[in-house]
Amino acid sequence: MLAGGIGLCQRPTTLNPPRILDGKALAVTVLETCRAEAAALRAHGITAGLAVVLVGEDPASQVYVGSKARTCAELGLYSRKIELPASTTQQELLAVVRGLNADPAIHGILVQSPPPSHIDEAAIIRAIDPRKDVDGFHPENVAKLVLEDPSGFVPCTPAGCMKLLESAAIATAGADAVVIGRSMIVGKPLALLLISKHANATVTIAHSRSRDLPAICRRADILIAAVGRPEMVRADWVKPGAVVIDVGINRVSDAARKSGYRLTGDVAYQEVAPRCAAITPVPGGVGPMTIAMLMQNTLQAARQFAG
Amino acid sequence: MLAGGIGLCQRPTTLNPPRILDGKALAVTVLETCRAEAAALRAHGITAGLAVVLVGEDPASQVYVGSKARTCAELGLYSRKIELPASTTQQELLAVVRGLNADPAIHGILVQSPPPSHIDEAAIIRAIDPRKDVDGFHPENVAKLVLEDPSGFVPCTPAGCMKLLESAAIATAGADAVVIGRSMIVGKPLALLLISKHANATVTIAHSRSRDLPAICRRADILIAAVGRPEMVRADWVKPGAVVIDVGINRVSDAARKSGYRLTGDVAYQEVAPRCAAITPVPGGVGPMTIAMLMQNTLQAARQFAG
Repeated sequence: MLAGGIGLCQRPTTLNPPRILDGKALAVTVLETCRAEAAALRAHGITAGLAVVLVGEDPASQVYVGSKARTCAELGLYSRKIELPASTTQQELLAVVRGLNADPAIHGILVQSPPPSHIDEAAIIRAIDPRKDVDGFHPENVAKLVLEDPSGFVPCTPAGCMKLLESAAIATAGADAVVIGRSMIVGKPLALLLISKHANATVTIAHSRSRDLPAICRRADILIAAVGRPEMVRADWVKPGAVVIDVGINRVSDAARKSGYRLTGDVAYQEVAPRCAAITPVPGGVGPMTIAMLMQNTLQAARQFAG
Repeated sequence: MLAGGIGLCQRPTTLNPPRILDGKALAVTVLETCRAEAAALRAHGITAGLAVVLVGEDPASQVYVGSKARTCAELGLYSRKIELPASTTQQELLAVVRGLNADPAIHGILVQSPPPSHIDEAAIIRAIDPRKDVDGFHPENVAKLVLEDPSGFVPCTPAGCMKLLESAAIATAGADAVVIGRSMIVGKPLALLLISKHANATVTIAHSRSRDLPAICRRADILIAAVGRPEMVRADWVKPGAVVIDVGINRVSDAARKSGYRLTGDVAYQEVAPRCAAITPVPGGVGPMTIAMLMQNTLQAARQFAG
């Protein structure tokens, strides 16, 4: 390693072990702040409330919904879990959403994705009161993100990535950031956050159709992988000294485990980590931040309703 | 020139004169299609109507508004020019917009930018019926652009840039596109169009705070300058064989001219053009396309209102 020397483009950080961006620990800190805020709101007679709607019996979705409800309980937020059969019609689901829109005990509404295929998810999202859209997927909040209007809700996963960078004091201004993936849930909103006047990064959005993805990624001071392909990002995709944020949470089969699978990110952690200045692990990186930001958004909603 | 040879990264096109992307000619073609469409709508009893609201006496704005009205007249569209004094209040302007929202003769509404400083422009834009927002600046249309929903209106200048690329059969899929500028009017929407599933480019958004802007620009297969700084992009910012789209229209003083000024783009045309595969001139490039796309948007609005 030392033989390679420190070139102009290489920072000495490559010689040190990388800094692990511990999302689990940061989430605990964020949730402590949330707990204090929830208490302050309760002192004003307001209990922040989150409704989570689940249509169908997808086991992974049930796990997510359960952990959201549990976190609410731990922080002193009110939560309501609404479990509907897979046969629920569009009209029935719309009626549930409208009921929650009108319910003063509920400040945040989340319809767990993905719904069964006969449901028009975009129409359901449009039906949510944008002031209760704590997922940040309603067109009104999407537009606020583009327009850099802080009254909107920022989608939880991109917000969690930004929080991880911020709390580690990683400078984004002027940095070359590359986002792999252009989804509405992560890639696009994250690119918009990084390009904003707040973050001032130079942002490249790359994707499955990009030519020479490794070369594009090698330009990145901050590399964010959000594609959902296990261990796609290899060591030679990463500039020495880069900061790597791994949004992917993929199940790959692993006979050595009792469960028969293990979780892995979009980044080949073992080979990439030694090159990085900082990297998020999977699990324990971006994942825990997502739920923490959901709690933060729910409290923002409750505060905005309060006045 | 020939002595330089043709390197791996250089296309032989650098040796040939660049292709001039003639926006003036393309606009004529687009406007001919608009004229035919307007006639077809009239045959169904619908005359597409555009209202242009001008607050104050800014001479440049008066020129723009005048040329929009003239183009409408030439194509057989109804147009209404509403000129209000600079002293118009927010409430008065809102009342005008609401009147136009309710007017069945009007399908497109445009409030000429910039309004006087006491006007809250964002609030005026939000007051426009999104179905009549032919500028594409209403949050609902901004969100549709992000969500790739074709029922929305695309801002005219970015739409004109895409049309120029498309009509010249310049492949965007997999290409490295660099957009300099992150405004809501050009940079951001153009980046979103280029990253969409329709165009599939790898997009970098650079700006005034980007580090080593020349190096970032040199990566571009398609380079789009939208910053409003005269001749900022120099020859050594451009990869040989790149396609260059110049969105800037800057007035620079020129004693040799009777008017005392000349128009120039954000690109130093004389030195950049010989390196390019294709380039837009200023004037006569993106400029004429903007008004053509406004007419196209107005017709889209009239069609959508018709059913």
